[in-house]
Order: sequence, then structure tokens, then C-alpha cells
Amino acid sequence: MSELRKDPVTGRWVIISTERRKRHGDFRLESVHIAPDPACPFCEGHEKMTPRELLAYRRANPAPNQAGWELRVVPNQFPVLRVEGGLDRQGEGLFDKMNGIGAHEVIIETPRHEETLATMSDAAVEQVLWAFRERVLDLKQDRRFRYIIIFKNHGVAAGASLDHSHSQLIALPIVPREVRDEVDGARSHFASKERCVFCDIVRQETSDRRRFIAENADMVALAPYAPRFPFETWILPKRHQSLFEETPRHECGSLARLLGDILRRMNKALVSPPYNLLIHSAPFVEPSGDFYHWHVEIIPKLTKVAGFEWATGFYVNPTAPEEAAHVLREAGG
Amino acid sequence: MSELRKDPVTGRWVIISTERRKRHGDFRLESVHIAPDPACPFCEGHEKMTPRELLAYRRANPAPNQAGWELRVVPNQFPVLRVEGGLDRQGEGLFDKMNGIGAHEVIIETPRHEETLATMSDAAVEQVLWAFRERVLDLKQDRRFRYIIIFKNHGVAAGASLDHSHSQLIALPIVPREVRDEVDGARSHFASKERCVFCDIVRQETSDRRRFIAENADMVALAPYAPRFPFETWILPKRHQSLFEETPRHECGSLARLLGDILRRMNKALVSPPYNLLIHSAPFVEPSGDFYHWHVEIIPKLTKVAGFEWATGFYVNPTAPEEAAHVLREAGG
Repeated sequence: MSELRKDPVTGRWVIISTERRKRHGDFRLESVHIAPDPACPFCEGHEKMTPRELLAYRRANPAPNQAGWELRVVPNQFPVLRVEGGLDRQGEGLFDKMNGIGAHEVIIETPRHEETLATMSDAAVEQVLWAFRERVLDLKQDRRFRYIIIFKNHGVAAGASLDHSHSQLIALPIVPREVRDEVDGARSHFASKERCVFCDIVRQETSDRRRFIAENADMVALAPYAPRFPFETWILPKRHQSLFEETPRHECGSLARLLGDILRRMNKALVSPPYNLLIHSAPFVEPSGDFYHWHVEIIPKLTKVAGFEWATGFYVNPTAPEEAAHVLREAGG
Repeated sequence: MSELRKDPVTGRWVIISTERRKRHGDFRLESVHIAPDPACPFCEGHEKMTPRELLAYRRANPAPNQAGWELRVVPNQFPVLRVEGGLDRQGEGLFDKMNGIGAHEVIIETPRHEETLATMSDAAVEQVLWAFRERVLDLKQDRRFRYIIIFKNHGVAAGASLDHSHSQLIALPIVPREVRDEVDGARSHFASKERCVFCDIVRQETSDRRRFIAENADMVALAPYAPRFPFETWILPKRHQSLFEETPRHECGSLARLLGDILRRMNKALVSPPYNLLIHSAPFVEPSGDFYHWHVEIIPKLTKVAGFEWATGFYVNPTAPEEAAHVLREAGG
């Protein structure tokens, strides 16, 4: 029997329809293979192939835009938004628009073409998270921006256009809709209970254990109660914190360790799947410190999304989160 | 320069980022080819391969579940929701769930394997729309349901698992989120202006012409101001109507003619693209007759949706709707 489940944060209903697993093609396991690419613009020695760097962590050579780095952040060569100019808000009859002002940056996570977040050292993953933090702290000083989204597309099926491990950051002049829905949902939970809904989730799931995957001192990984996608996994800080960029160094370390662990479990259980990774943090222009709680969402790309999902915002998930959590618990080292 | 545009119904912002077109792989034209399939369960003569029919339009032979039909409606063999049982709403600590009660039906649009909505006669397409209407009128008598969504996945890339032309219908015990957002947006427009926002859009677009594509006596096709996807196209009735299932026969005929015309334009301009088609109609358990306006959305599948879109609900569209409308206007006749 299928179940309809409601996400406790956004109120979004999903169908958990385990019978659909029987249908051919619903579940394809398409592994990510990183092909060698002598013309990869993100490889060490190819610094001239990218725009000039905004940030780099270097081993020895202090000169920018040259070999010797462990991580680089550069502007996206084909940005969806541009950093120059004013917002110029305008009406057109019924309609509203503004200039596409924003920042679009690429975090090149490693100088080595074949590495991934799952094979890098914990210290290297921690550096990636620290670079996210540094870029957000810098960009949020720009008063035109209201939100910064950090995300990663791993594998072609997840939207990556280059194999070399990288993440992206987009600073936006608006708070996007998924985040708005989470913030509004968390605010209304707080209004009725005076508690953070994410803290409530962490408490219930760590005691219930059915959707619990793994944890360490500061972070917990779990399958959400009403996931849109099979094996959707969230990592949350145990301590209430609304802004990712205020994460102290030792918690970045804890997140790096748990993130690497989860990605290795997914590689083992799901045969190196393509995935999207996202960080949801509080909008920085409105007070949401009491009730919002930053977190990481990891979405392996195992199913196709078709018309029904677009039409309705109503997702059909063929894998129960209890089953996904069980599989990922068992896949632990 | 990119633009940020706000959908006047839902308030959803999209990025119209025409510079992104330059990036390799953003725009793949993957034509739909219908492969012969001797084991197709939807072909005439194979009636035993589907569950028993719920509705059929027949040429001569009056016996059900046998050859001689022009259109059949059958239950989906792998339904995401089942029709038997009660909703049994339950709480689980923080969480809410209910049984997966609903109906999931397949409308087999033609007995001929190789036909599509673009190659069928206008009269045959009108029959398909009439079958939608009949099934909705039947299912909405069931008090467990709050919404019925009708959709079509054309081509494997759009999620179709069978090539033979068909649509699907799902009756739901909840109003799904995309529809909820449209209804709420339309209600608040009406509250401030005492006008239907969709009627306002039809009026502005038919006079402005930049996003206008085609029209006939009763229906108009246009590119929405803030489309999530390249070549996203809406067809709306010119007369204010909230419920698709109250469309009179002659307006079904007008819709059939314009729909076939638009699909042929897309086949010509976009090389027979995969697409999703959806009908958005008012929820039938709440009064929304004054302010909601049913419509058809057609979304050719030309781009991949990656992490950023999932993360934010914030879509990057590489084709301006003015350009899409121009291309589809030119592809006429």
C-alpha cells in the first residue's frame, strides 16, 4: 500500500509508492565515471583556462592563478547572473522584472582530476566547506543580495558539465521559493510551539532510529520522513544554528567527516550514483535565527522526474526512507 | 544581460539567461521516435494485456475489452495510488501521513501505435479531451478526492515508459502544491483587483503580441512571461472558466484544434521534441470559480534540470519567451 506523507517543514505531500519499484526503468543505476580530459580547465597547470581566481588555498607558491594550489574559487565562465550593475526593478503592465544581478562562482575542490569528495581526505573536504564559508561571508556584505545558494552537481545525469570535482555558488537578489517555503514553515512551527522544527526532527529521528543513518559529535545524517527522491539524505548540525557560514572550524571538520562517510556509503550501496548536493541556510536579510536550521541535502539521481511531478509539485518516491536509511546504515565502513 | 522575472500568478521568480545558450549541452534536441512494438499493450487487438476498461469510444463492436475502439481508458497497471480503502489519517510524533488512496488511470488516445496528438485528426484529439472530461466528472463524485491531475509524458526523455500515445489521470486526496500556489496567488490577485489574474494575462498578451503564439475563437496559446523552461507554452480559454470539466463540446473542439496546431509547430521548430503536457483546473472542493482559470501547460523537454533548480525552486531558462513565441509563430501553417 502506498502512503501519502507530509514534510513537517514545508507541508509538501509526497507519495511513497514502493510498488512502483516493479516498473521497468523506474530505477536505473547509472554510475559516474570520471573520464581523463587533457583539456580540463580545472586541472592544476590549466589556471589560464578559467577567469582569475577569487580565492585559493595554496601549498607553497604564493602567486595567484598558477600551479601550487589545493582549492580555487573562480567566477563561472557562463554565469546565470552577472555581478555588475544595479537591480533596476521594473513593472511591465501586470508583470515584474529586475536585472539579472548576482554572483555565480565555481569552487574547484581539488587540483587532481580524478578525485571526488568521497575519495578526498577529510581535511580536504573540510577545506571545501571552509571555502564555502569564506565566500558567503564575503558576498553577504553586498547589500544587493538576499540569498546565497551553494550546490554541487556530480555526474552528467545530475547536470555537471565538467567531470573535475567542483561546486557552485550563486548569490541572488531574492529569496528563492524552496527556501521561502522552508523558512515560512519553520516560522509557523515556531509560532505555535516555540521550538525549531529541525531540532524537533533531529530529536525524534535520533530517538526513533528508523530513518537514522549515521552521526558524530556535531552532525547527524538521516533520511527525511517525506523525501521527494529515493535515498534523499539530510545532514544537520545537532546544535541549533540558522546560518551555515557561522559554523565554527571544528563543526566544519565534523561535517566533512560525515559527508565523506555518507558519500562513500552511497557509492557502495548505489554503485557510484550521480547526485546533487545543496546547502540550505537562512536568508541573511531577515531574522530567522530562532526557528531556521541550516542543513545539507544530498539527492542521488536514480529516477527520472516526469510530467506529473512538474505539474503538481507532488513527488512519487518508489523507496521508503526507512528502507533507504537501513541500506545506508548497512553500507557503513 | 540576464533578467529576473516574476510569474504573476504564483510569484515564482525565474532567471531568463540567454547567455547560457552558449554552453555546450544546455540545449539538446533529442527527437521522439516511435519504435514498432509487437507486444505493445495499448495496440488494438491487445486488450487482454491491460486491466479492464473504465471507458471506451467504439466504432462498431459494442462489447468492451475487444477490438473496435477509438479510445480506451483503463486503470494504470502500476498505480501510484490505489482506489480501495479509507484515507486513515494518522500522526507519528511530528509527522503526518495517510493511506495512498486515489485513482490512477491511463487514457489510450488511439488504437494505432504510430499516431500522436500531432498527427491525429482534430476530431480524434477532441475525443481525447472529452474522455478527460468524462473521467473527471465521474471521479469527482468520490468524496475522498480533492484534486484530479491530467498529464501526458511524450517520449522517454519526458518520462514515458510506453511509446503508444497515452495520457494519465491521477485523483488525489489532497490539493498538490503547484496548484495550491496558483490558487493562492490567483485568490490574492482577485482580493486586491477583483479580476482573474489569468484573464488579465490573456488581455495583456493578446494586445501586446510579443508572447502571443496563436489563437482561435475560444482559445489562445502564449509563452508565459516567466517560463521555467524553454518553449513552455500555455493554452487558455478566452472565456473565464475555472473548471476544465465544465468545458462545453464546442470549446473542446477549439482546444483540440489549437493543441494539435501547437504540437505540430513544436515538431517543426524543435525537431519532434519530447514533452510533458498538463491540465491545471480548479480544486473542486473549494470555491475558486471567480478567480481561478483552467489552462493547459506544454513543456518541451530541451534542458536538464540540475541541483540548483531542486535546491531553490528557482529556474534558469536559456530562452526568452519572446524568442520562443516568435519561433512558434513563424512555424505556423
